[in-house]
Amino acid sequence: MAGNSFGESFKITTFGESHGAAVGVIIDGVTPGVDIDEAFIQVQMDRRKPGQSTVTSPRKEYDIVHILSGTYEGKTTGTPLFIILYNKDMRPEAYDDIKHSFRPGHADFTYLEKYGIRDHRGSGRASGRETAGRVAAGAVARKMLERRGVSVIAYTQEIGGIACRDYVEEAIESNPVRACDPQAAVQMVEKIESLAAIGDSCGGIVECRIRGVQPGLGEPVFDKLDADLAKAMLSIGAVKGIEFGAGFAAARMLGSQHNDQMKGGEFITNHAGGMLGGISTGEEIVFRVAVKPTSSISLPQQTVNRDGEDHTIVTIGRHDPCICPRIVPVVEAMACLVIEDHYKRQAATRY
Amino acid sequence: MAGNSFGESFKITTFGESHGAAVGVIIDGVTPGVDIDEAFIQVQMDRRKPGQSTVTSPRKEYDIVHILSGTYEGKTTGTPLFIILYNKDMRPEAYDDIKHSFRPGHADFTYLEKYGIRDHRGSGRASGRETAGRVAAGAVARKMLERRGVSVIAYTQEIGGIACRDYVEEAIESNPVRACDPQAAVQMVEKIESLAAIGDSCGGIVECRIRGVQPGLGEPVFDKLDADLAKAMLSIGAVKGIEFGAGFAAARMLGSQHNDQMKGGEFITNHAGGMLGGISTGEEIVFRVAVKPTSSISLPQQTVNRDGEDHTIVTIGRHDPCICPRIVPVVEAMACLVIEDHYKRQAATRY
Amino acid sequence: MAGNSFGESFKITTFGESHGAAVGVIIDGVTPGVDIDEAFIQVQMDRRKPGQSTVTSPRKEYDIVHILSGTYEGKTTGTPLFIILYNKDMRPEAYDDIKHSFRPGHADFTYLEKYGIRDHRGSGRASGRETAGRVAAGAVARKMLERRGVSVIAYTQEIGGIACRDYVEEAIESNPVRACDPQAAVQMVEKIESLAAIGDSCGGIVECRIRGVQPGLGEPVFDKLDADLAKAMLSIGAVKGIEFGAGFAAARMLGSQHNDQMKGGEFITNHAGGMLGGISTGEEIVFRVAVKPTSSISLPQQTVNRDGEDHTIVTIGRHDPCICPRIVPVVEAMACLVIEDHYKRQAATRY
Amino acid sequence: MAGNSFGESFKITTFGESHGAAVGVIIDGVTPGVDIDEAFIQVQMDRRKPGQSTVTSPRKEYDIVHILSGTYEGKTTGTPLFIILYNKDMRPEAYDDIKHSFRPGHADFTYLEKYGIRDHRGSGRASGRETAGRVAAGAVARKMLERRGVSVIAYTQEIGGIACRDYVEEAIESNPVRACDPQAAVQMVEKIESLAAIGDSCGGIVECRIRGVQPGLGEPVFDKLDADLAKAMLSIGAVKGIEFGAGFAAARMLGSQHNDQMKGGEFITNHAGGMLGGISTGEEIVFRVAVKPTSSISLPQQTVNRDGEDHTIVTIGRHDPCICPRIVPVVEAMACLVIEDHYKRQAATRY
Repeated sequence: MAGNSFGESFKITTFGESHGAAVGVIIDGVTPGVDIDEAFIQVQMDRRKPGQSTVTSPRKEYDIVHILSGTYEGKTTGTPLFIILYNKDMRPEAYDDIKHSFRPGHADFTYLEKYGIRDHRGSGRASGRETAGRVAAGAVARKMLERRGVSVIAYTQEIGGIACRDYVEEAIESNPVRACDPQAAVQMVEKIESLAAIGDSCGGIVECRIRGVQPGLGEPVFDKLDADLAKAMLSIGAVKGIEFGAGFAAARMLGSQHNDQMKGGEFITNHAGGMLGGISTGEEIVFRVAVKPTSSISLPQQTVNRDGEDHTIVTIGRHDPCICPRIVPVVEAMACLVIEDHYKRQAATRY
Repeated sequence: MAGNSFGESFKITTFGESHGAAVGVIIDGVTPGVDIDEAFIQVQMDRRKPGQSTVTSPRKEYDIVHILSGTYEGKTTGTPLFIILYNKDMRPEAYDDIKHSFRPGHADFTYLEKYGIRDHRGSGRASGRETAGRVAAGAVARKMLERRGVSVIAYTQEIGGIACRDYVEEAIESNPVRACDPQAAVQMVEKIESLAAIGDSCGGIVECRIRGVQPGLGEPVFDKLDADLAKAMLSIGAVKGIEFGAGFAAARMLGSQHNDQMKGGEFITNHAGGMLGGISTGEEIVFRVAVKPTSSISLPQQTVNRDGEDHTIVTIGRHDPCICPRIVPVVEAMACLVIEDHYKRQAATRY
Repeated sequence: MAGNSFGESFKITTFGESHGAAVGVIIDGVTPGVDIDEAFIQVQMDRRKPGQSTVTSPRKEYDIVHILSGTYEGKTTGTPLFIILYNKDMRPEAYDDIKHSFRPGHADFTYLEKYGIRDHRGSGRASGRETAGRVAAGAVARKMLERRGVSVIAYTQEIGGIACRDYVEEAIESNPVRACDPQAAVQMVEKIESLAAIGDSCGGIVECRIRGVQPGLGEPVFDKLDADLAKAMLSIGAVKGIEFGAGFAAARMLGSQHNDQMKGGEFITNHAGGMLGGISTGEEIVFRVAVKPTSSISLPQQTVNRDGEDHTIVTIGRHDPCICPRIVPVVEAMACLVIEDHYKRQAATRY
Repeated sequence: MAGNSFGESFKITTFGESHGAAVGVIIDGVTPGVDIDEAFIQVQMDRRKPGQSTVTSPRKEYDIVHILSGTYEGKTTGTPLFIILYNKDMRPEAYDDIKHSFRPGHADFTYLEKYGIRDHRGSGRASGRETAGRVAAGAVARKMLERRGVSVIAYTQEIGGIACRDYVEEAIESNPVRACDPQAAVQMVEKIESLAAIGDSCGGIVECRIRGVQPGLGEPVFDKLDADLAKAMLSIGAVKGIEFGAGFAAARMLGSQHNDQMKGGEFITNHAGGMLGGISTGEEIVFRVAVKPTSSISLPQQTVNRDGEDHTIVTIGRHDPCICPRIVPVVEAMACLVIEDHYKRQAATRY
């Protein structure tokens, strides 16, 4: 109800503030008997952590994965799998200057309006740190999906107006912006570094492809597979939009162009992005999300404080000038959670 | 679980196939003591119904609203409000030719994969007819929101590549495409009629504005207000994408451009679209959805039948060459449901 | 949230007041491809209806089952199955005398406190009439369970202090009180008739046996199978208690007496009532519920009206002097709903 | 779905096995701005812990409360409150003898049937240790309820056939069995000690009284206040039955005896146990639960192993010969959770 859980049959509940003692997640609905260990999850955590390159925040989070329940002798037991990541490098005093002021683009103002009280340290629960629990849970879902032959891959498609023109899947994890086009990646890095130098930030587009999903996943009407993916993606702080398959371009297509015709038992095209009526077709599921420029910039901005007085704020601290490369593993994690959940729901449907 | 319910504190559950006996909705969580009557709901139903103009389907649905429970002497009682709309004009035999074949762009294939059985008549549950229950429930939510000073308005922003350049709110309901620009509306109608003449269809963009929402609505993390709106909109059959505020354009903006600064206790701009960290700021909530071209076209298309044999299909029948004008009230209805739900959830949060 | 839904994977949502236009239920999560028809459901409805004998209310409810969605050519499609029962024989004016007064033992006072408004006619939503939707849904669940080899049977074990001493399963449906002991049944009928003659009422105990449930159903911790059965039974208006297996007698047993030991791969006894740790053992599931005496009696009683003034009330009308025989099919229906739901949940668990 | 969450608006999710690294709970839906600290919770934990007297297990659990998120400067923030209790004194090797065998009365057999895999150490998730998270969460709920003027008290009413005849509330926490009658308490202790000496165990009855609840709490139909309390109580491992108000005795009463009449704006009696139609009347809420004798006894018992072979088992280890005194705080905790949840739900209802 209060919104810290996600999923139905494969359900996660997260907790933790960025500058509190720890963040983490309970996963309820884990299939029993599956091999799982901390090292497998750690790989995903390391893709999300700050400080991976010059384009990400130098802030150090100690994302060391600890599984405290739900496994026995290296296998899941079906009981809640609990993962905790203790916070280190907490410097709450670094945030004293924003205690009574609202940073533009941040949730400072809205949290105070909602709760009447606010833990201002490092954005508290609204911090990107919150996604650590999601990525840990997503790694567990990914493990489940591997058994089902499903793979999930996301990558940067555009940053600061520079779009990928090529698709080289092997190149994605070997450039600091996780772009699918290594040439474009070089330009993106330059763009980010030049913006960082002047204290500004930029946004971009992240694309995700899900392969190997069996036809028939997704519930009709409200829990359509695309509806659940849309919710999952918009629940990520910096995401401002999503489109499936042809997406917004479909708005300018004719029915005769957009419809995916079939031949020889297969779809000839995939403008729909792998779903029809909210249910998977068996084709690749494709979507793109719009990522806003990072709100934390070190240029002076106008704002008000709790007493409504105008003043100028400069957000100092260690921030990502472009969050796309670090959002990639979060997008994958959320996609894994949605797909695994719908596999389990479909099991109940047909049973 | 099976996905025919939406909302938490103000929850709807819908039922009904397009060519079955009836469609309808149970609304659970209605505030007691509110004036409500069938005439108020009927107004919204009439905006959704087919046959309103030359650009909509001439098919007649008898969307006559019947409230069968949950009110007493014209007021809600707090018990489930049940609304039924009996189907008339059912001509299931008109669909005999598609009994064993999959129409491109429709959910025929995926429903069969999901359930192993399919009610092929008029798309069954995947039909746009299913939205009648949503619009009825949305009208009830709208009534609740009026008491809170909230208004919700949607309109066509673009059809077939023709975009609105002007915003004349009073013009929206007086042109057949529900466009916010009466000049553009004329061109849109021409475009649709010319496409209809050759049996093709087109898509468009629908925009929605929600005004008067108090700051503080929306739950952090997974049930962000934008995440719930995204799910609501993507659950509408023809919607392929959504963007909030600056949306995909934000991907090309700098942080210094996108951040909404504050002055004199107010936001100077509203690039965020009325939410920060998934929680309402009190500013206008703005989003746009991409609507795909109607799948039902009367041009010949390639497909396969249940036995996997290739053949050509021509979808005859009474269909909308562009669904935008009729999606407008559905978008409004879903928006009303999300906002009313979050008002009730916020009541529980602070209590 | 507002409590008119039950179940997770096999979920029902009910609506309707006793003296409104109709009552009914939406069932979401129905397995597709199962034969179902109105006649099958009607059989269960007829067991619940009033006027079956001298010991039940002569009030006529027209419990004619209408399935308005979710089936196609006699089979379920997996979409919401909607069942409606139109009310006839509504005489709201018969309730005018209680419009401003609270009947002892009824929910008149509490509904007004909860909602600030009350539909007083025939108890509105608190009426036994509300169970009609449950019994219809339970019949559908029963059909699903038959395929799984599960049977559910309930019967009167005690009425007005007269307990069954024998267990003759074939006799249950052939005596008007649905007792498992035909001798005791004769005495029970006499007791009820004598109480009815003086305008009083009595309670009793109903027992339920569920056979053929596979081991392993039920979720540990909060959604134990017995916890969900307890909630289901206590959600029936007149039920004031429940006990499983040895039940309250277990409180006076020693561990060495109560523990069910095993031999030859089977349990020697079944004091646990078919569940251990909230999960089914494969043994018969057995529980008993305490049914309070009907609140509607025609003896004068002290009460207050909405203005807090004392006065004497005499509830006239057509009521059951003992509700046990008519609660039997409701107990069965709720048990069927719980078991079918947990079968589907277990399918998701192990998948 | 997998059953490790409880509540809707005030929702808890627990994790942890008895012999794993930790147990704990996430509470979602905490009212912001309420004073809360670890010391307050610790008091309740200490009431639940083993080793409090000669009649409880000498096993040492280190129930030291750590709040890792959801508070700021001693006040709740509205974000998830996370409490962890690290396990110490784990001796998994003590359970090696039951690795392949099913202890009578335990969930060993059913967990294996459910999951196909089992963490046998100390009953894993089925252990009473699991209730530690509930008691911690219940303490937080109790703090919320104090603000509303609600108090919750439970106590032993009967043990091993010895019933309390007196009600001395002040005596409850000062005798080792938490009985409401200090004379009876002496006999109960003797009874338990004599059974412990021969390796046997006994059950009992725990009663709970909830005072100060406003009229109007509880949802009609399925989420009746008594239905939710029943589920809450039956979700406690050793509980085999529950009754409200007059309970099973109501089955033998006449309507004229059982109905609670009103005079001077108040109820004259409270046979209903504080609820009518599942909604609170404002009277004291009263219920009793049947507690089975502890399953772990050191007398030889017949059982089978995983290969289906018969053999004799003797459960050694540190166990409570009667669990009633330690179930008292768990009953209170679950009651607090249900009541606080319904306060929040009612806030949403009337808003």
